[in-house]
Amino acid sequence: MSKYDNIPYKMYLDENEIPTAWYNVRSDMKNKPAPLIHPGTLQPLKFEDMQPIFCDELIRQELDNDTKYVPIPDEVLNFYKMYRPSPLTHAVFLEKMLDTPAHIFYKFEGNNTSGSHKLNSAIAQAYYAKKQGLKGVTTETGAGQWGTALSMACSYFGLDCKVYMVKVSYEQKPFRREVMRTYGANVTPSPSMDTEIGRKINAEHPGTTGSLGCAISEAVEAAVSTPGYRYELGSVLNQVLLHQSIIGLETKAACEKFGIKPDIIIGCAGGGSNLGGLISPFMGEKLRGEADYQIIAIEPASCPSFTRGRYVYDFADTGKVCPMAKMYTLGHDFIPSANHAGGLRYHGMSPILSQLYADGYMEARSVEQTAVFEAAEKFARVEGILPAPESSHAIRAAIDEALKCKETGEEKTIIFGLTGTGYFDLTAYEAFNNGTMTDYIPSDEDLEKGFASIPKLDL
Amino acid sequence: MSKYDNIPYKMYLDENEIPTAWYNVRSDMKNKPAPLIHPGTLQPLKFEDMQPIFCDELIRQELDNDTKYVPIPDEVLNFYKMYRPSPLTHAVFLEKMLDTPAHIFYKFEGNNTSGSHKLNSAIAQAYYAKKQGLKGVTTETGAGQWGTALSMACSYFGLDCKVYMVKVSYEQKPFRREVMRTYGANVTPSPSMDTEIGRKINAEHPGTTGSLGCAISEAVEAAVSTPGYRYELGSVLNQVLLHQSIIGLETKAACEKFGIKPDIIIGCAGGGSNLGGLISPFMGEKLRGEADYQIIAIEPASCPSFTRGRYVYDFADTGKVCPMAKMYTLGHDFIPSANHAGGLRYHGMSPILSQLYADGYMEARSVEQTAVFEAAEKFARVEGILPAPESSHAIRAAIDEALKCKETGEEKTIIFGLTGTGYFDLTAYEAFNNGTMTDYIPSDEDLEKGFASIPKLDL
Repeated sequence: MSKYDNIPYKMYLDENEIPTAWYNVRSDMKNKPAPLIHPGTLQPLKFEDMQPIFCDELIRQELDNDTKYVPIPDEVLNFYKMYRPSPLTHAVFLEKMLDTPAHIFYKFEGNNTSGSHKLNSAIAQAYYAKKQGLKGVTTETGAGQWGTALSMACSYFGLDCKVYMVKVSYEQKPFRREVMRTYGANVTPSPSMDTEIGRKINAEHPGTTGSLGCAISEAVEAAVSTPGYRYELGSVLNQVLLHQSIIGLETKAACEKFGIKPDIIIGCAGGGSNLGGLISPFMGEKLRGEADYQIIAIEPASCPSFTRGRYVYDFADTGKVCPMAKMYTLGHDFIPSANHAGGLRYHGMSPILSQLYADGYMEARSVEQTAVFEAAEKFARVEGILPAPESSHAIRAAIDEALKCKETGEEKTIIFGLTGTGYFDLTAYEAFNNGTMTDYIPSDEDLEKGFASIPKLDL
Repeated sequence: MSKYDNIPYKMYLDENEIPTAWYNVRSDMKNKPAPLIHPGTLQPLKFEDMQPIFCDELIRQELDNDTKYVPIPDEVLNFYKMYRPSPLTHAVFLEKMLDTPAHIFYKFEGNNTSGSHKLNSAIAQAYYAKKQGLKGVTTETGAGQWGTALSMACSYFGLDCKVYMVKVSYEQKPFRREVMRTYGANVTPSPSMDTEIGRKINAEHPGTTGSLGCAISEAVEAAVSTPGYRYELGSVLNQVLLHQSIIGLETKAACEKFGIKPDIIIGCAGGGSNLGGLISPFMGEKLRGEADYQIIAIEPASCPSFTRGRYVYDFADTGKVCPMAKMYTLGHDFIPSANHAGGLRYHGMSPILSQLYADGYMEARSVEQTAVFEAAEKFARVEGILPAPESSHAIRAAIDEALKCKETGEEKTIIFGLTGTGYFDLTAYEAFNNGTMTDYIPSDEDLEKGFASIPKLDL
């Protein structure tokens, strides 16, 4: 008999138990995250500086380090009810396979057409754009999770959605592109001939297949230069972590409802949107000294911003059109090796999570991608869900922790974030199935090249 | 105020409310479905005739017209709990968009990695194979929904799973193939050189890209000629409708729990697995005279077995290796036009549903594919789920019924089956998005060619 024998396999909150306010973890942080700064003046960005780029209300949320609970607007809550509450699942089949005394739970955010947690922030961002009377928004997308989420959200509110999609993905990964188009988005391969920077890059690098940095630059330029448009971003920003706190709040509510007491909380970390959202309310308890949890960020060994990066001000994007943020960074010129299949390829990290990590409130580990896909396959076979490569980083770590418990006999309770499904990542699964997937760990010299792009500031 | 204002948007049964027995609609049918017959002797197939092909327990279920409730084995129930209960969803956003007084609900079976309801029968069939001590099973797959479901089920029970996948899909639709391989299935492009019939077809038609008929023949040959193997099939058969009754039983339980009284029940119909499962318990009430429902089967205009087919004995497969069934059929040589994208391409229909239709217990309608994709896109945009083309046939009909209510002012309650997601059907969506999708309605002459393949029997 285990202490969790009498709870359901999948734990759903009732619809009226969905949290009605987001939680702002900054309100409980003694050391607040460092502000975004203007690359010219090196001064903290003010409301007015950001107004041409972001919606007003989202800037307020970005700058607000104090408000503890931000009410979720009714229109956003209504949309949440389409796909939330998401299940907290007891991984009994995985536990059995591992033959571990540990208890494993996962919060699954993949049961919506965007395929990931990104929709939680996309709908909020689209709502504030609509409320401000805007005509549309722009964004960039690589593989397409965020672009898909924002397309769905804009379609719901009748907003135009212009997505700059890295050209190589646009051409080689047509499926996500077509989901976005089905939701009415205007999807443009980047670099395009629509923007000044796109034309410049096309002229300088004929035949280029694009990069995320270039797509960001195009999306920002398009937003700033088109009346009635703003730019929206799916990770890294404080506002995004605020919206994503819905993941952690639901998880915590389910823990309380079903009597689950987590010891370890694990999330994958790219820009930090999922990890930050999942851990926020638990971190709040930890910051207030009310409870203790072991909180672990998992990143790819090929893009190790937490574990091998520097905690300094750097540009948020390779194109240097965005402000600078103080964060763990590999340098804005760092690009993971071409063999890297598993997402989480951002050079930096959420400023909130960076501060929490610097202050010792959480750990970070890196994992290699073949080990990640081995965990993904194991998980898929016993738990019946084909996980996204990003999520599988957390699965790898959860399995490793559960196997440690098997050695020590400890009955720890582990919760991890299963951010999404891998239906659009089957090229990577194919490489794994064929045994052609390889690992890559950047050498110190490789990292030095990225670090060299970090601006030397007199701060 | 509407009568359904106080129910949740998504209605989940509790885990302990999942039905624990399948319902056998044949037990309430006065006119039982016609038996499968042996093509040589024209006599009804007996247990022993089927034993080389199917598992023993599944043959018993196939032949059993009398048992009303068949207990679901614990091992199958445990697996169901991975992805069931599935939500019965109140389509409030769709209702609002249509501005209809009708109430629309859908039972969503797509929240599992197989992407459809097929898993409900796959896990049962794999269980009985395992219980019989078999080593493995064989099957065929076209686009891959059934193959994926059976791969997942076999992986769970540690059974070998050999899938013959139509060669053109194997090569051009690698994503489902890789999901099956991730679940450990052996996926072979058909026609292969593994089987006698495969070698024959390859010799006679060098470079052929295969057909479902050929893949069935290979799968059956492989099962019969390999010790410890049997063949499993995902639709048409009585046993499949029995397992799929879980859809309808959950739907009915949710209706009772939340006070929903359906007037119209709509399902898409290919071989009948989803429609039969969804309607079974409601049809039972209708057959017993306890309640009345308008039950509507929706099929593609390009493959109209109910609406334009003949109710006669025909081969179940184009390769004529399977028994003959009395069913609505377009002739086993009938193949829908190449422009047909929306699934549901089987020439025949479940014998159970055929008998119920012949006896006037249900209606059938056909819809054209561009109208189906228009409905799919509308639905995706407001309800947040990208539907499978198959499911979208039911969406089209539900929208049409709701619009009729708008004209008449009637406040009817409509339930339809949303069988799955369209993540692997984006090539069809792309054609729709690009405006290159076309419709096809076979002429009477086209149908006559198919009818010509129906055997002339002296029965």
